[in-house]
Amino acid sequence: MTNLQIIPPGRGTGLVLKRGEQLRVVDPEGGQSGDVMAFSLDGRQRLSNGRTFDYGGKIYLSTGDVLWSDASEPLLTIVADDVGRHDFLYASCSREMFVKEYGLQDHANCTDNLRAGLRDVGVDAGPMQPAFNVFMNVDIDPTGRLILQTPRSRAGDGIVFRAEQDLAIALSACPAILCNGGSKGGPTTTRPLAFQRV
Amino acid sequence: MTNLQIIPPGRGTGLVLKRGEQLRVVDPEGGQSGDVMAFSLDGRQRLSNGRTFDYGGKIYLSTGDVLWSDASEPLLTIVADDVGRHDFLYASCSREMFVKEYGLQDHANCTDNLRAGLRDVGVDAGPMQPAFNVFMNVDIDPTGRLILQTPRSRAGDGIVFRAEQDLAIALSACPAILCNGGSKGGPTTTRPLAFQRV
Repeated sequence: MTNLQIIPPGRGTGLVLKRGEQLRVVDPEGGQSGDVMAFSLDGRQRLSNGRTFDYGGKIYLSTGDVLWSDASEPLLTIVADDVGRHDFLYASCSREMFVKEYGLQDHANCTDNLRAGLRDVGVDAGPMQPAFNVFMNVDIDPTGRLILQTPRSRAGDGIVFRAEQDLAIALSACPAILCNGGSKGGPTTTRPLAFQRV
Repeated sequence: MTNLQIIPPGRGTGLVLKRGEQLRVVDPEGGQSGDVMAFSLDGRQRLSNGRTFDYGGKIYLSTGDVLWSDASEPLLTIVADDVGRHDFLYASCSREMFVKEYGLQDHANCTDNLRAGLRDVGVDAGPMQPAFNVFMNVDIDPTGRLILQTPRSRAGDGIVFRAEQDLAIALSACPAILCNGGSKGGPTTTRPLAFQRV
């Protein structure tokens, strides 16, 4: 893999992806989830889980599925996927979430990472909607209860997105242990994420 | 039921609900879904499906469950529920959705209704996140596919919310046939919604 860029654990980045360009997001070490946020490059449309659930008729997305904006336009299409399980239900971890759920002040978090990444490419995110959480592995039992599992991604696995319009993209290597296999006997630190234009 | 206020089919309204006050949202005729949006009265926090899924650990909410804001504060608690099935996955129907899915131009829609209702009580909604869709009945099959069913609500059934802080609330009687039992043999028009302070 040439031109693979590493996002250190708990950090994020922003980039512009022009219509038709493709971005591969990679889990370099395995078992790590990441957040992908997309806005139209003019900042007027943002990724919408609720709109995507409506138009796709499903909550689990993989190859061939489209991620829609809150203005009902396609933003990204998944064109390849080594993993086949990602989450679009959970809001990105935030400063307040780390205080509330982990008792940690001023912790690195996906919301701030995504916001900063978007700002770096000229987009003011405003109120943040849920991101597409690559590799994050959430089961739903028949009563609707959510069960966080270890991501299924192995080292080097990735997912490829094609831009359906000019986009501002932000990525975050999720710093929340519980989204990355953490629990009794699980890892105690999070891992990097990576990406490359393909 | 005294002081029951009717929202005509396809229309919406806004109201202020102060901390500790309770609001009952009613399906007066049965089989009708509605959208409930909540913002902090200062307009700085909005209802978040992703945050609520995270903190509640479930996608189906009923009595005892809390609806959270995107700033990780409780907005509403469900304190009574005659129906037991509501949706928090689907984005509210919108002008663009009616063009795309029904081929209808300038159709009444929950997004515009909620935005207008919030504006009436002094809140500029900005980008709209998914509302809490009372009575809307969505099943998820084991593969994650979403199946729209007829609402389980019978005439007069309701759900009661308690405000956990001072709130701007907007309600909409959903004008989308597919959310209200529409299909082969189903209804061809939508019905009113109602509400009362309790």
